[in-house]
Amino acid sequence: MNPESIRKLFQEVRKGTTTPDDAVNRLRHLPFEDLGFAKVDHHRALRNGMPEIILGEGKTASQVAGIFSRLAQHGGNVLATRANQKQFLAVKSKVGGVEYREFGRAIVLQKDSTRYGKGIIAVVSAGTSDIPVAEEAVVTAEVMGNEVQHFYDVGVAGIHRLLANREALSKARVVIVCAGMEGALPSVVGGLVGVPVIAVPTSVGYGASFKGVAALLGMLNSCASNVSVVNIDNGFGAGYVASLINRLP
Amino acid sequence: MNPESIRKLFQEVRKGTTTPDDAVNRLRHLPFEDLGFAKVDHHRALRNGMPEIILGEGKTASQVAGIFSRLAQHGGNVLATRANQKQFLAVKSKVGGVEYREFGRAIVLQKDSTRYGKGIIAVVSAGTSDIPVAEEAVVTAEVMGNEVQHFYDVGVAGIHRLLANREALSKARVVIVCAGMEGALPSVVGGLVGVPVIAVPTSVGYGASFKGVAALLGMLNSCASNVSVVNIDNGFGAGYVASLINRLP
Amino acid sequence: MNPESIRKLFQEVRKGTTTPDDAVNRLRHLPFEDLGFAKVDHHRALRNGMPEIILGEGKTASQVAGIFSRLAQHGGNVLATRANQKQFLAVKSKVGGVEYREFGRAIVLQKDSTRYGKGIIAVVSAGTSDIPVAEEAVVTAEVMGNEVQHFYDVGVAGIHRLLANREALSKARVVIVCAGMEGALPSVVGGLVGVPVIAVPTSVGYGASFKGVAALLGMLNSCASNVSVVNIDNGFGAGYVASLINRLP
Amino acid sequence: MNPESIRKLFQEVRKGTTTPDDAVNRLRHLPFEDLGFAKVDHHRALRNGMPEIILGEGKTASQVAGIFSRLAQHGGNVLATRANQKQFLAVKSKVGGVEYREFGRAIVLQKDSTRYGKGIIAVVSAGTSDIPVAEEAVVTAEVMGNEVQHFYDVGVAGIHRLLANREALSKARVVIVCAGMEGALPSVVGGLVGVPVIAVPTSVGYGASFKGVAALLGMLNSCASNVSVVNIDNGFGAGYVASLINRLP
Amino acid sequence: MNPESIRKLFQEVRKGTTTPDDAVNRLRHLPFEDLGFAKVDHHRALRNGMPEIILGEGKTASQVAGIFSRLAQHGGNVLATRANQKQFLAVKSKVGGVEYREFGRAIVLQKDSTRYGKGIIAVVSAGTSDIPVAEEAVVTAEVMGNEVQHFYDVGVAGIHRLLANREALSKARVVIVCAGMEGALPSVVGGLVGVPVIAVPTSVGYGASFKGVAALLGMLNSCASNVSVVNIDNGFGAGYVASLINRLP
Amino acid sequence: MNPESIRKLFQEVRKGTTTPDDAVNRLRHLPFEDLGFAKVDHHRALRNGMPEIILGEGKTASQVAGIFSRLAQHGGNVLATRANQKQFLAVKSKVGGVEYREFGRAIVLQKDSTRYGKGIIAVVSAGTSDIPVAEEAVVTAEVMGNEVQHFYDVGVAGIHRLLANREALSKARVVIVCAGMEGALPSVVGGLVGVPVIAVPTSVGYGASFKGVAALLGMLNSCASNVSVVNIDNGFGAGYVASLINRLP
Amino acid sequence: MNPESIRKLFQEVRKGTTTPDDAVNRLRHLPFEDLGFAKVDHHRALRNGMPEIILGEGKTASQVAGIFSRLAQHGGNVLATRANQKQFLAVKSKVGGVEYREFGRAIVLQKDSTRYGKGIIAVVSAGTSDIPVAEEAVVTAEVMGNEVQHFYDVGVAGIHRLLANREALSKARVVIVCAGMEGALPSVVGGLVGVPVIAVPTSVGYGASFKGVAALLGMLNSCASNVSVVNIDNGFGAGYVASLINRLP
Amino acid sequence: MNPESIRKLFQEVRKGTTTPDDAVNRLRHLPFEDLGFAKVDHHRALRNGMPEIILGEGKTASQVAGIFSRLAQHGGNVLATRANQKQFLAVKSKVGGVEYREFGRAIVLQKDSTRYGKGIIAVVSAGTSDIPVAEEAVVTAEVMGNEVQHFYDVGVAGIHRLLANREALSKARVVIVCAGMEGALPSVVGGLVGVPVIAVPTSVGYGASFKGVAALLGMLNSCASNVSVVNIDNGFGAGYVASLINRLP
Repeated sequence: MNPESIRKLFQEVRKGTTTPDDAVNRLRHLPFEDLGFAKVDHHRALRNGMPEIILGEGKTASQVAGIFSRLAQHGGNVLATRANQKQFLAVKSKVGGVEYREFGRAIVLQKDSTRYGKGIIAVVSAGTSDIPVAEEAVVTAEVMGNEVQHFYDVGVAGIHRLLANREALSKARVVIVCAGMEGALPSVVGGLVGVPVIAVPTSVGYGASFKGVAALLGMLNSCASNVSVVNIDNGFGAGYVASLINRLP
Repeated sequence: MNPESIRKLFQEVRKGTTTPDDAVNRLRHLPFEDLGFAKVDHHRALRNGMPEIILGEGKTASQVAGIFSRLAQHGGNVLATRANQKQFLAVKSKVGGVEYREFGRAIVLQKDSTRYGKGIIAVVSAGTSDIPVAEEAVVTAEVMGNEVQHFYDVGVAGIHRLLANREALSKARVVIVCAGMEGALPSVVGGLVGVPVIAVPTSVGYGASFKGVAALLGMLNSCASNVSVVNIDNGFGAGYVASLINRLP
Repeated sequence: MNPESIRKLFQEVRKGTTTPDDAVNRLRHLPFEDLGFAKVDHHRALRNGMPEIILGEGKTASQVAGIFSRLAQHGGNVLATRANQKQFLAVKSKVGGVEYREFGRAIVLQKDSTRYGKGIIAVVSAGTSDIPVAEEAVVTAEVMGNEVQHFYDVGVAGIHRLLANREALSKARVVIVCAGMEGALPSVVGGLVGVPVIAVPTSVGYGASFKGVAALLGMLNSCASNVSVVNIDNGFGAGYVASLINRLP
Repeated sequence: MNPESIRKLFQEVRKGTTTPDDAVNRLRHLPFEDLGFAKVDHHRALRNGMPEIILGEGKTASQVAGIFSRLAQHGGNVLATRANQKQFLAVKSKVGGVEYREFGRAIVLQKDSTRYGKGIIAVVSAGTSDIPVAEEAVVTAEVMGNEVQHFYDVGVAGIHRLLANREALSKARVVIVCAGMEGALPSVVGGLVGVPVIAVPTSVGYGASFKGVAALLGMLNSCASNVSVVNIDNGFGAGYVASLINRLP
Repeated sequence: MNPESIRKLFQEVRKGTTTPDDAVNRLRHLPFEDLGFAKVDHHRALRNGMPEIILGEGKTASQVAGIFSRLAQHGGNVLATRANQKQFLAVKSKVGGVEYREFGRAIVLQKDSTRYGKGIIAVVSAGTSDIPVAEEAVVTAEVMGNEVQHFYDVGVAGIHRLLANREALSKARVVIVCAGMEGALPSVVGGLVGVPVIAVPTSVGYGASFKGVAALLGMLNSCASNVSVVNIDNGFGAGYVASLINRLP
Repeated sequence: MNPESIRKLFQEVRKGTTTPDDAVNRLRHLPFEDLGFAKVDHHRALRNGMPEIILGEGKTASQVAGIFSRLAQHGGNVLATRANQKQFLAVKSKVGGVEYREFGRAIVLQKDSTRYGKGIIAVVSAGTSDIPVAEEAVVTAEVMGNEVQHFYDVGVAGIHRLLANREALSKARVVIVCAGMEGALPSVVGGLVGVPVIAVPTSVGYGASFKGVAALLGMLNSCASNVSVVNIDNGFGAGYVASLINRLP
Repeated sequence: MNPESIRKLFQEVRKGTTTPDDAVNRLRHLPFEDLGFAKVDHHRALRNGMPEIILGEGKTASQVAGIFSRLAQHGGNVLATRANQKQFLAVKSKVGGVEYREFGRAIVLQKDSTRYGKGIIAVVSAGTSDIPVAEEAVVTAEVMGNEVQHFYDVGVAGIHRLLANREALSKARVVIVCAGMEGALPSVVGGLVGVPVIAVPTSVGYGASFKGVAALLGMLNSCASNVSVVNIDNGFGAGYVASLINRLP
Repeated sequence: MNPESIRKLFQEVRKGTTTPDDAVNRLRHLPFEDLGFAKVDHHRALRNGMPEIILGEGKTASQVAGIFSRLAQHGGNVLATRANQKQFLAVKSKVGGVEYREFGRAIVLQKDSTRYGKGIIAVVSAGTSDIPVAEEAVVTAEVMGNEVQHFYDVGVAGIHRLLANREALSKARVVIVCAGMEGALPSVVGGLVGVPVIAVPTSVGYGASFKGVAALLGMLNSCASNVSVVNIDNGFGAGYVASLINRLP
């Protein structure tokens, strides 16, 4: 629907190779199609050159398999997040070459292995329990063509563990930090590096952690200016934003 | 009302030096008196050997002056917190030797300068705006007979500022940490020292800091095990608890 | 990483017994090691002379057993909190001498029985349902070398039950108070004793207790000045802080 | 609109002394009238034999005076709550015999001094700052014909102050308890007496008191079974409910 | 511990029939005993002449049976609330004459059938789903010796259903109103009757009802002045308070 | 109870065909009857000419079947919402001609197929997971005699999908928009059409969606002026309101 | 941008009366213009045939006047809501024929007095303090060409006041109900009428009303199915939605 | 403190040009200095080559001037955010070349005009009232060396206004979107562009907008995957993060 193609359309009308009625119809013919339960948007994939994403959670195994196989026909990478083993088996029976990334709860079809990212994406997590969220970020960034390096269990109560990795961290082009409980880690990491930090609050904790709200508020109020935040447990979103940043020319 | 004095009372009754009716009355005569608008509790002062405290906020200047002068007659230290200049002037006109600690918003009468604390109380604050709360903790601890050392503006986004003071911090017997915004500082300090840390969330911040709630939640969820928390902006409470800890034999 | 050892390192470099490159490496070689899924921090144990703690919740039985047995090799006490029977069995098959404290949901390895605490830690709870949290505090304090005395089911609606224990309570050096519902008990206890009170809100209650939030807010707003607060149901944290206070020289 | 009067109406219709149309109209003629900005409900006063109440807050001085003078013409007591000095002066210029109760922020016209209450209503408050709310309860109960006794500044952190009044308290037929901060007082009072306790959370406090929410939640979760609760700072409501209870035959 | 008995004690000491030491001990001997997991408070029962209450929720069947049988030995009524079938069977095997009130989820032992209440307690509920909470209030009031009348499914969206019962309602001495969702019923009922209304928010509803919070807030803000409120789903508390009111002489 | 019928009643009394006592009784005889657990309100159905609705959730299968069959005898349409398969089978065994709408979780008895609606009701939903709520709205509107058109999976992140349906949307007389997560769709749709938009927040989402609260707040704050909102997941309410609007003459 | 005009555009291109480049430009030329600080959207006015609305709040007097006079040139009605006296004077100096509706805080320019609404819009409010919000709804509906009837101070605690207006209410085609505090009125009104009810929570109340949140939640959970809700104090939105409904053919 | 400089230090010690004691001291001498009320951190400026930032809010005019002039001596750009006119005048009297950006409430000293950003930063805002926050982002990005283009008043209720700017928007390398009320704009913009979007919730709105919380939640739950979020009203943070992204090589 960009000006060029519209201009071309008008020129065809001018030349008489297209009738006005056909032109109106072609303007309406937008690049998506209808599976009944979900409009598959190829357009988006075309627009930004990135893989199609399916949110597995809340969909049946056959719904996931249906959408996944359809998207797989277009030749790019496909990623199903928050997917379980059962959904994976349903997909696997329809699509070849898929793998299940258990820690990151993701079904991955990686046909395109081009390295789109210009630098390293560092994924840092505070505690052992934050790893599933961190892994979701890792697998997302990898499917989107990035080199990823992870730094796990480097929470702020033992600051020396983080400082020991300072040099490695400072080589990243973007940093993703996952933390639950008080969510302090992004502030400390943000102070150590000079690049954008994507903070992911996790629902790790109990009592007054309110399933990640404490960490979320902590990150939104970070005293480090280079921190922006995504939803609680949204490792995928962090991996996606980091990938977009990392592929900027 | 301790067993000893009650036993003594019974023995007087036995001996006939006290009648049963007088005994009942003496049991009732508890050590406080009535000013009309507030029952002044000398008993508490006797019990724990500590100064009387007046919360200035929400009281008129003359109410503060009335309570203050009454308490001053008992010879110990008196502290009015969250007090303003006007309340100070009212007190000053009735009681000699008082001073106003502007940063800590406190009226202080320090007749007893005994050093009750066994070690140093460190007061750490994250940013310039947290200083009033930190100062309230400082003045409270000082009135209660402690040596206090403060470390201001050492927030987590510039972790080297805190680490530069690590050695000095590690000499404290108790540490008070005041922080607003994400409230991450107590976790980091807690990881650096091996003594109790009293965390004070401050209402510094805006938006999703919700007037200190973000910091409060962060501190309650601290991954450092040696952290306990007092109310938002409650510098007094932190100073009081730290003093109690520091005077433990 | 204290100044003394660094100075020694520089002196070795001066003497030529260490090369500059080796020196840089030794500076980096911090005292923790990597198990893959969690960095075990011996350093922390060394720093404060206290047992290693494992949070059982959210870890598999074999993860708990793996970390536990590793830590057990260092000879000190080990405590796994919020641990279940299954995790205990996994640990027991790898480590000798462990016991399971059912009420406190804790796996304990107590090699060192030194009495580090200088006085008694009193653990007070309001109702029968608060006992698991109180027991977590008890077992933590015991593993950390303290004499503990508990006072259960002495809630404020029957104040005479608490007052009957007043004398015993007043002998404690630190008091832990666990309460759900309105969380009023720490305020009353705080008024009865002259030592630090660690308040633990519990998630006991229903409706507007909001899983411990009512109790938490009550405790943060305590009118007793000697009260500080830990997270909802955080019996471990209370026991830890109380132990630190009790071992202060 | 009770069955008796309706039956009478039907009988009049039967006898022909009232036409069906008149009867329909009389059914419609309910006992209130229209001042334009507020429908004055005399009916309610008739129904329960109690004074008319005006909420001063949010009304102009002349609105308050207009409603007040209208109600005064019906001969019963009139009470304007949350009223300020300006509103009082406006009322005073129109209605004789009114007085302003400053602490309770109430304008009172007490033409009927009958003692309707069968026993004493006790009003207990935790701190000096809770007094305005307590006084609102006091003035409401007095205007409604009750003997009221107050016990101020008997908060739970100095439990002996409350216990010293135990005997007096136990003579009340209903008890109102006003408290801010942690709102623990109603639970303790509830355990001491065997009569209904009306708890009034006050907005006294700061930080995590959230303008009375902490006290409100504490009271709703009271472990004393004889406690019911009214809105934050609603001294009037407590006085009203207590009066209704106290006048039950 | 009332003045009379203490005076008597002093007189015995005077006469020499009691030694001072024995006197001190008797002062200490308060009327409760220790079952290990819960201090059974006979004192409370004596004080207010009412049945013992056990909260079944969160206790094992054998704990409930243990406490229940102990209390049953004192000859009064016993009520276990929020109790399930399993707990009932455990109690039944130890105590004769108990019955299970399924709708009200209560185990009842009613040895004393005295009618203590002076009038009728009306229990009103808005919808079918509110009935369990309403029944808990009913059974509580009945065990405490009251005549109870219930009006179910008379919610405000069909106001004629409520109005049809207006006359019957107006005969009650106290009214309990249970409602979920918007919790509007107590306001309407409060406007129809001239006696105290105890409002019980229920957790009935979904979405923005937030498990009873919407109803709770509605009731706390009732524009009817004769309404006081208990915790969400607290039918027991409402029945208890209503019973206390109804037995006032 | 309208004036006409009351007048008629009075006229009968006048004529002597009805006695005053009978007249009082007839006034009381309101059009509902009592099933014991729920007052069935035929009156409401008569009043607004619409089907009877049963909320299935929280009722047993036999309760649903009982109410359903009773209502079915009155000849109109009957709809049970939030009903499960088990409830459907119970109804089916008692009532002929019922069908189960699985996606919309509704049991439907459609005896009256009159088209009451004057135009089309459009039902728009943002994502695949919002469909159950949208379907509840669809089935409700259909049972109430409307032509319904649905537009699914047209969320705002792919705005072209919505714009492609703009023309079809603009033909609706009322629009229902269901969306979870950020709940932005009603604002965009509201800007595209000139008719009333009923927004239904859904509980679709995770983390900071807080089970639909984020969407609810978004919709309440819609910058499109033609949007009003119903409860989270309340597809039924939206369908009901839309039907009322659509049948306005 | 409707298909017809686009088809026409293509036909012009076909005929050669428009060049392809001009056609692309005309497609881009959407009907709004730029004032620098706000894009005035005439398009919207054209689309739905309704007046332009300006939100006065948060704009300077001269900004309001600037936008107002610009919009006034297009000949339709103009309405500035939440406008103060100062803004009115600024508008008045630039635009003739404007009036200020003080109670509804609105600046009105009513050039078009066509009665667009097909029936009566009833505006009901619970208390005197809700009138400003109700008046905002009234003025909005009037500017949009409706006959409006208001029923003020008919809150639920005196249900007879509402019932007395039942007949009048039942003649409305749409009903707007404004209420603060517990927000119960829409449920009762909803049960009395068979037409759509737009509920407006107001911020009237104190304490646990949380500035309208209690009323908002009450309305969202209304047990009356014909209720939908707008934002707190959003009288304008209610008037707008009601007008759209009332003008449906 | 990077490895290179430490290695150099060791080598000097080896050579004997530095003594071990001097070396220890130099390790300690970190690059910040102490102004008494705030530690000025030049180090941070050196680390990331970016201007020093001062938060004006909550600081006195002389504090701002003191810090500003100190920082100005280091030759880079200086930015004071949330600064008022009075603070500006204090700064201006001490530092030459500063300017006040009124809409963005910023004091700017721009000595370095290097264009560090590689592309355009687009700043989009929903309504007129969001402009101050948007301007804060603009001025921050400009001081940090970026070309900025703004698109104001293009909220989602008039989607054509946004679509009209689609082409221009798609040329940006990073997009900042500021919106209050429902906060829907970032989702729509996120769907239109293929680059990172930084969403800034603003406190614009009333009632259930809860001072920006509705917008914040909306943005955190955005269905567009390329959106990350900063604190409410944090235009500075958005400008800072966007600048970091835009200067990535």
